[in-house]
Amino acid sequence: MTLVSKRPIYVDNSATTPLSNAALAAMTPYFQAEFGNPSAIYSYGLTAHKALEDSRKQVAKCLGALSSEIFFCSGGTESDNWALFSVAERYWGQKAEIIVTAIEHNAVLKPLEKLENFGFTVKRLKPDKRGLIDPDQLAAALTDKTVLVSIALANNVVGTIQDIKALVKVAKAKKVLFHTDAVQAAGYLPINVRDLDVDFLSISGHKFHGPKGVGVLFAKVPHRPEPLIAGGGQEKGARSGTENIPGVVGLATALKEATESFGQMGELRALRDQLIAGILEIKGASLTGDPLKRLPGLASFVFSDFTSSVYLINLLNEMGVCASSGSACSAASREASHVLSAMGYAPEIAQSSLRFSLSRLNSASEVKIIVEKTTEAVKVLRTKPTVSRLKKGGRSRPYAGLF
Amino acid sequence: MTLVSKRPIYVDNSATTPLSNAALAAMTPYFQAEFGNPSAIYSYGLTAHKALEDSRKQVAKCLGALSSEIFFCSGGTESDNWALFSVAERYWGQKAEIIVTAIEHNAVLKPLEKLENFGFTVKRLKPDKRGLIDPDQLAAALTDKTVLVSIALANNVVGTIQDIKALVKVAKAKKVLFHTDAVQAAGYLPINVRDLDVDFLSISGHKFHGPKGVGVLFAKVPHRPEPLIAGGGQEKGARSGTENIPGVVGLATALKEATESFGQMGELRALRDQLIAGILEIKGASLTGDPLKRLPGLASFVFSDFTSSVYLINLLNEMGVCASSGSACSAASREASHVLSAMGYAPEIAQSSLRFSLSRLNSASEVKIIVEKTTEAVKVLRTKPTVSRLKKGGRSRPYAGLF
Repeated sequence: MTLVSKRPIYVDNSATTPLSNAALAAMTPYFQAEFGNPSAIYSYGLTAHKALEDSRKQVAKCLGALSSEIFFCSGGTESDNWALFSVAERYWGQKAEIIVTAIEHNAVLKPLEKLENFGFTVKRLKPDKRGLIDPDQLAAALTDKTVLVSIALANNVVGTIQDIKALVKVAKAKKVLFHTDAVQAAGYLPINVRDLDVDFLSISGHKFHGPKGVGVLFAKVPHRPEPLIAGGGQEKGARSGTENIPGVVGLATALKEATESFGQMGELRALRDQLIAGILEIKGASLTGDPLKRLPGLASFVFSDFTSSVYLINLLNEMGVCASSGSACSAASREASHVLSAMGYAPEIAQSSLRFSLSRLNSASEVKIIVEKTTEAVKVLRTKPTVSRLKKGGRSRPYAGLF
Repeated sequence: MTLVSKRPIYVDNSATTPLSNAALAAMTPYFQAEFGNPSAIYSYGLTAHKALEDSRKQVAKCLGALSSEIFFCSGGTESDNWALFSVAERYWGQKAEIIVTAIEHNAVLKPLEKLENFGFTVKRLKPDKRGLIDPDQLAAALTDKTVLVSIALANNVVGTIQDIKALVKVAKAKKVLFHTDAVQAAGYLPINVRDLDVDFLSISGHKFHGPKGVGVLFAKVPHRPEPLIAGGGQEKGARSGTENIPGVVGLATALKEATESFGQMGELRALRDQLIAGILEIKGASLTGDPLKRLPGLASFVFSDFTSSVYLINLLNEMGVCASSGSACSAASREASHVLSAMGYAPEIAQSSLRFSLSRLNSASEVKIIVEKTTEAVKVLRTKPTVSRLKKGGRSRPYAGLF
């Protein structure tokens, strides 16, 4: 007997991932049986405290860091905000300068807008058409006022992987601190903070089959991050609030699992390349981002002679495929991604952006279906003149009943 | 056959609580089967989005608020920090004044120290010996520069419940905004934000048998809180980061459960009073906080002619009772609580602080054992001259093997 799953094919792992069985199993005891507050000095507290510190060691090991350099928080966005504000606080009122790229996630760009309001100068480097920043470009942008560079390890919309080592070298030559948002990279690329030589690095549990609501800020000794959230003095005074023990344990377990799966990353790359080859068969489709320096599971495209990808994603959903246009945060928006715009795509092309992000849970037969359905959906959208009369906004279901 | 539980008696529910069965059951589907990112526009996303908004409605209902006034975040500490910074940002650079009490939780006091560094003035009102702030005292402290008052609904060390309504009335007469830290109160006292007339209110999931790592900021319309954590624009732009759906669902479920149990709060009060009566039989023991206006599950004491309660808590732990000195965050510290010091206790008395916090999971037979063990433990510590030779710090187990 063959059981046919009615669940849609999920291919938006850059947005979020299901919790792995191992992570859930590791978390479970800490919900009820071992629920203690790790600051407490009695038995329940000591058990929770041990789980916290064991998780810290585990995360440190996966990133090539010291335990004392690992700080837990509520997610990738908090981690990014925290790194930026932590450095900014040291240079408050000094008209200091921060350099980023124009294709950072909003978790970096939005707090920087706040820092601009507080008197900081922010320079946003424009990448090339593939999403790459040239180290010489960074070198030319650095001034005596620059106190921090923040460049993501891998881009969330197009999957381009920066040469962070080369960029860090340029910043270090001027003694400028370096933060990297590794939210999309962690669990998919081996990360060694010593090798990268970064000062701060951010990751988020739910991007690699860990739980939502928990993240990590790596801060290289002797940088102890200034608290963004102050209070009871948890995380050595750097991040207050009762520690989310199930979350922390789940993140550490999922990161270990992902790290152990790096040997099979070739299989994920093969799936991605199968997907890329299939989608490029569609007339007018082109791959966005760097063809080689890209995340092993991420395949992103634009289409010429096409409409907003919001319709395509809605239609794919009706057909049983869950994909996105890029950042989940702006999924319902029909505006062009700031990432593609900064990479030089015209608005009418950029708004056709389609992102597939595979994880180790996807299969070759799923990829085959994804390609078939996407080919069909693009065809429908190119021929149906009804498109322009569709309800606005992303939460409509314009094609309900069509398939 | 009687099964004798070997688990210690847990009576530190003000520090944290085990997750309720209902909360865990409600959360479980969102870890794996319905793991979607609520911003996504496909099926998994829509299900997650519905769970998020249903939880928001549930929390709003429990607090007498509108859904649009409920903002989720990572916990009580973030919620407190957020409320304070959110108001402060509007008055940046204006030498504005914030009034609090000297017995607030560090989640309020520590961010205010930061705001002092940024040019704000902070006034800390001293309560009376029972932990109460007189509305006239607040009225006298308000000036034209005052922009915010932040006073906790119930104190975390001694359990005293403030007359928030009267205090809000005083602040409102001068058009000053009011924030209340309701982290200890939520789930134990009925809370209606309209009745209290507060502008901001903070709660934390894990204090009432919800999950760790999730909290709520209530912000009265039309105050939309300024983001403390900026990025993808979740929570209507007020708090970015992929929403912690299992956490949010767990918090909402636990709050509903707690709210439905208010009818049985008399039983919890009876247990607390049984505990108070028993402990007051110990020579030199006195109740701290207000004898009547106190949290239904909280009983707190000091002892004359005694040593640091760190030893007492360690010893009780060896005897199978998990209690604390007050704030979990400072559990391992032998310094006197800032709360008791502000209430006028001398350091040598304040450092003997012992807090029991019961929940609906505790029983009368447990209370009997707690009283017996505490009586015995205090006796041991008063007679053993070895006390002064004990290892310093809270994580030692000085009495291992004695019982």
